Parts: sequence; C-alpha cells; structure tokens
Amino acid sequence: MRVFNFSAGPAALPEEVLRQAADEMLDWRGSGMSVMEMSHRGKEFMSIHEEALTDLRELLEVPASHRILFLQGGGLGENAIVPMNLLGAKKTADFVLTGSWSQKTFKEAHKYCAPHLAASGQTADGFTRSPARAEWRLSDDPAYVHLCTNETIHGVETFDIPDLGDIPLVADVSSHILSRPLDVAKFGAIYGGAQKNIGMAGVTVVIVREDLLDRALPICPSAFEWKTVAEHNSMYNTPPTYAIYIAGLVFKWLKKQGGLQAIEAHNIEKSKLLYNAIDASDFYINKVERASRSRMNVPFFLADESRNEDFLAGAKARGLLQLKGHKSVGGMRASIYNAVPLEGVKALVEYMKEFEQRKA
Amino acid sequence: MRVFNFSAGPAALPEEVLRQAADEMLDWRGSGMSVMEMSHRGKEFMSIHEEALTDLRELLEVPASHRILFLQGGGLGENAIVPMNLLGAKKTADFVLTGSWSQKTFKEAHKYCAPHLAASGQTADGFTRSPARAEWRLSDDPAYVHLCTNETIHGVETFDIPDLGDIPLVADVSSHILSRPLDVAKFGAIYGGAQKNIGMAGVTVVIVREDLLDRALPICPSAFEWKTVAEHNSMYNTPPTYAIYIAGLVFKWLKKQGGLQAIEAHNIEKSKLLYNAIDASDFYINKVERASRSRMNVPFFLADESRNEDFLAGAKARGLLQLKGHKSVGGMRASIYNAVPLEGVKALVEYMKEFEQRKA
Repeated sequence: MRVFNFSAGPAALPEEVLRQAADEMLDWRGSGMSVMEMSHRGKEFMSIHEEALTDLRELLEVPASHRILFLQGGGLGENAIVPMNLLGAKKTADFVLTGSWSQKTFKEAHKYCAPHLAASGQTADGFTRSPARAEWRLSDDPAYVHLCTNETIHGVETFDIPDLGDIPLVADVSSHILSRPLDVAKFGAIYGGAQKNIGMAGVTVVIVREDLLDRALPICPSAFEWKTVAEHNSMYNTPPTYAIYIAGLVFKWLKKQGGLQAIEAHNIEKSKLLYNAIDASDFYINKVERASRSRMNVPFFLADESRNEDFLAGAKARGLLQLKGHKSVGGMRASIYNAVPLEGVKALVEYMKEFEQRKA
Repeated sequence: MRVFNFSAGPAALPEEVLRQAADEMLDWRGSGMSVMEMSHRGKEFMSIHEEALTDLRELLEVPASHRILFLQGGGLGENAIVPMNLLGAKKTADFVLTGSWSQKTFKEAHKYCAPHLAASGQTADGFTRSPARAEWRLSDDPAYVHLCTNETIHGVETFDIPDLGDIPLVADVSSHILSRPLDVAKFGAIYGGAQKNIGMAGVTVVIVREDLLDRALPICPSAFEWKTVAEHNSMYNTPPTYAIYIAGLVFKWLKKQGGLQAIEAHNIEKSKLLYNAIDASDFYINKVERASRSRMNVPFFLADESRNEDFLAGAKARGLLQLKGHKSVGGMRASIYNAVPLEGVKALVEYMKEFEQRKA
C-alpha cells in the first residue's frame, strides 16, 4: 500500500512516474537496455537528455539568454560552486538570510570572499519572514546577491522577486522550483537539488545567464565550472543519467497536469487547506508571517509539545508519514510538494482535527 | 530482448539487480515508498546505506583504518577534490601517467599545486603500459602519488601495487574496482565513479585512510571535504540515495557470485578468451603490453580500418552493442565489466571470427 509521504526531501514522486520507471527498467523502449546501462553519449540517452532540457525550458519559460545545466553535489555543493563561478575579480557577494539554508550558504561563502549580510528575516521567533527589497542593504560592488527563495526547514518562501538591474541575483530554488511560474529572466542564476520537486536525489539543476559564464575563479574544479559544463552540454563528466531520466519523466507529468500555472493553483489550494487548519485552532501554531508562508513546507507546532510523539504515532498509523519537524527546530513539518496529492493534505487535516479532539 | 552491452560506462548491470529494482520501485519492502522517495535520515534508507557500507567493506576487505564515503561528481570531480583534500601544506603531488584519465588528473592538479610527473607509460604507440615502481621518479616531498589503476580508454591496467611507505598512494580505480581483490591497506585513498562496476552513474566511492582526513585546503568545498563527509557518515548533504541503493544491490549480487576471488577468476576467463581471439589473427590488433592489458576494457583495431562501420553494423545486428572505441583513439573497444556474462564475450568472439572470414 502506498502511503502519503510528507518528507522534506528526498520526497514523494508521482506514482505514474514510478510505474513508468519500473516498466522501463529492463528494456527502455526496445533498446534492450535499462536507462542506467546506457552510455551517456549514445543516441538513446542523448534523446532522453535533450527532451528533459526542452521540457524544463518550456515549463519554466527559461529565456534564450539562460543555459540549463545538470550537475552534481546538490544545494550544499552549490554553496561553494556558486562563488567559485561568479566571484570573478570581485571581493564580496551579498546575502539575504531567510532560514537555515541561506545561513549555510552565507557561511560557506567565507571560504572564497568576504561576504556581506544584506538582510535577515530572523526575529525573536526564529526565521519567520522574507525581508522585502526595501530592507536589503547591498554592499558597494557585490559580485552577486544571493537569496534562498524557499526555506525548507523554516517554511519561509519569497514571492516578490526584485529586479536588481546589473547585479546578478542568484537563488537557491531547491525546494519550490516548478511549484509555480518563476520569472527566470530576473535571475543571474538559480539552482536546486532535484530531490524535492524535480525527481530523485543526485542531480542539481543550474540555470545561468550565459554572459556570466566567464567569471570562474582559477581554483574552480573543472567538473563544477559552469562554463566547462555548458560547453560540454552537461557531459564534461558522466552525468547522473538515471536521475536526469527520472527528472524528465516528472517534467512530462507536470506538462500533463497543465504546466506551472495549473500546478500553482493546486499548490495554493493544498497549502491554504493546511494553513487554515493550523490557524483555526490554538492547538497548532505556525509563526511565519502570512505573506512569507511557504506553499511547499509547512512547519507547525503543537501547543502542548508533550504530545508530539503521540501525534506522530497516530499519523503513522493512518499512513501519514515523515511529519516530524527538522531536528534544529523541532515540532512538525508537512512538506506538500507537487507530487503530494490534495487527498493527502485532506487526510492530514482530518487527522489533525481528530487528534485535537482526543483526550490527552 | 536484452542485448550484450559492451559500453565503457554507464555500463551493463546484472539483470537480477534490475529486476529487483523494478519490483521494489513503488513499495520498498512494505514501506509504502519507493527508495527514491525516502528521507535519507529515515530508518529505511539508513538501513540500506549501512548494509551497502558493510557489504562493500566485506567484499574489498577494507581495513578498519580506512573510511568508506559516498560522494558525487565522479572521477573527474575527484581530480580536483583529491588535491583539495590531501595537499595540506605541501606544494606538490606526484603523478604516474598510464592513459587519458591519469593525464586529465595531472592537468587538473595544476589548479592546486605544482604537480610532478613521476612516470609515463606513453610510447610511440600511445599509452601501452603501466610503468613499474622501479621506473617511478618521485619528487622530494610529495603530498601523495597518484595512479589510475585501470585506464578505460587505453585498456591499461596496473596489477602490481607498490608499497610507498609513508607517502600516501592514491588511485583512481573507477573502471576496475570490484573486478578483483585489491590490497586497500597499500593506499592512502582510492576513488571511483560507480557507473562501471558498482552501479549507476551519480555516486562516487571514496575509501580513505582516516589519518589523512586532516589535510584539506581551506578552499575545499564542505560538501566535498572528506573529513566533513566522514563525520556526517556521507550525509552532510543529501546523498544520491537511489544510486547507493543500486550499488547495494550490486554488492549483494557480487557476494552471491562468490565475492571478488570468484569474480576475478571469471574476469580472467572472459578477458583471456577475447585477447586470445585478437592475438590469434593479424586481422585484429591490440598494442598494449601483455602484462598491462586490462581485464575490463579491451580496445582493439581492425587491420583494415575501412571496415570499421561494417564491423559495428554487423555486431549491432547480433545484439552486440557499444563496441565503438573512444573517439580519441578510434577503433573498437569491448568493456567486459563484472556484469557482462561469459556468453556475451563468447558471442563477440564468435562474431569476430565470422567477420574476419567474410569477404570485404
């Protein structure tokens, strides 16, 4: 029996994607090979790769100015790879902090430059908001400004993306890419690990404006140098072929759902249902400012935290899994990525109401 | 119909591994989830990860002095990651060149130090041999000595592994790891991409002596710093979970085959059959010195290269795929990794004989 999986990532995948992957495992479309067994330079895998690129470009409406790259190392890898690729001759980059992930990005940047803290959404209640552009205090000459547009742990999402003119805006979009349309043209680069909304862990998507490909530091490893990767169409080293294949199946599934506008409407409906349930009662608490509440990751606390284990055990008994909050913040967290169906959120909300009415 | 797949990597996988992966795709052992959907910190995936580590340690008889890490970025990624992790305060490292891969490793090292060329197996016929220890001219104080113990493109394998005493020996073992027993204790570190003998592309295995974990350069990205990765048991960033799962299935399959002694005997039989067919006739040519001939990658040329396309077309018609040599050297190449069955090599040899007898 399949469960409702609220994992923050690796996370739920569409069942029909998994079915197709299982069906094609031993013999991909008469090739006599599994996708895992294909040379990345053979015509079969090349077609899978090209189709994934085309579909992703179409879904996100990536402008011709930007290249799509498939790398490895995930979001944490990019924390080093981004500065190594974009600092050029500049001595600093600016950072907007909205949660644990952007904090880590800021910390890692110290290895390569003197990073500047431009704004922080930290309040007495922890990270609870995404500071508006008017609050950002940029340094004089940053190589780029970095933002994490959805914070998986704190549940803070940034909806207003400013236009920074000549300064490249770079965003970690790992945990909400493909959950809604995004104006890619506003960004110098966006990047994300696949294991939330794209597919399985092991491939990192980087979308970068082509004119920024000439700024790598000499110490940047060739395998992670965006220019080199772009020149080789993501085949400088052997790409994570199967992860790209699974991502491609997810892209096809998204197109069948009606694309990003349709999936956004669906995600608004799911997240409203859950936030409404939290706000309807003092029993559940979410402290994030309403305008910054993530549609993908919904952290919440029981007012009586002594009942946490009870809550999780009861949820598990109903097939509602992976609801425990990240260890750094505690409480609960429901990640409701694209592949988590409305029925899953309804089942969770129903359980939450029932649990509240139970005797302690 | 499944084919015989002689790809150099990504490469053939054991059919029973693929069958199990297909069977478990939607619901891993009653968990209600695909392995792709599991949190890397949940007990289900933790058990998969631990079992893979235990089985690999047992297969390779990895001594307690060495840690096994799962990273991303493949062999080419390690060309930068190794020097960033092992140079410490030293200014050089030494390199033994035996083919294209060690050449690339040597080139990339220039980003981080002044590398020293200790020996080369290049002859008038290209890379055709692995220089013996007596030929190596080490520098005065190298941080380590690097070797690629199997060159996928040139088909050169190193069988005699020297003991360098206090100098760490580091080897790229990507394309023959698990094809035979290896005395891991002789190495400071070995590393390899998975896509030849371990599993699918997207996970890199690093096995490193624990006392070498304190030598990373400050510029080493945290996600690729072996000490950080070791301290977090390969979970500093989200690991490529599905690739680790597939590797674990391959490790179980290897144990069922009788472990590395048994698989080595099998690989000797397969490679002898193929080299004998090549040597038995002037029609086919392999220029690698006999003592350095790879058991995994067998490059060969037709004496009459105008018949190359014919040869490949006829092979394909028989379900013998991916026999074209690497574009940098031309000719043919049969990669006969663990998962390529003896029947596949027999079918190839039979075809080669038949093709030779055909009229041009």
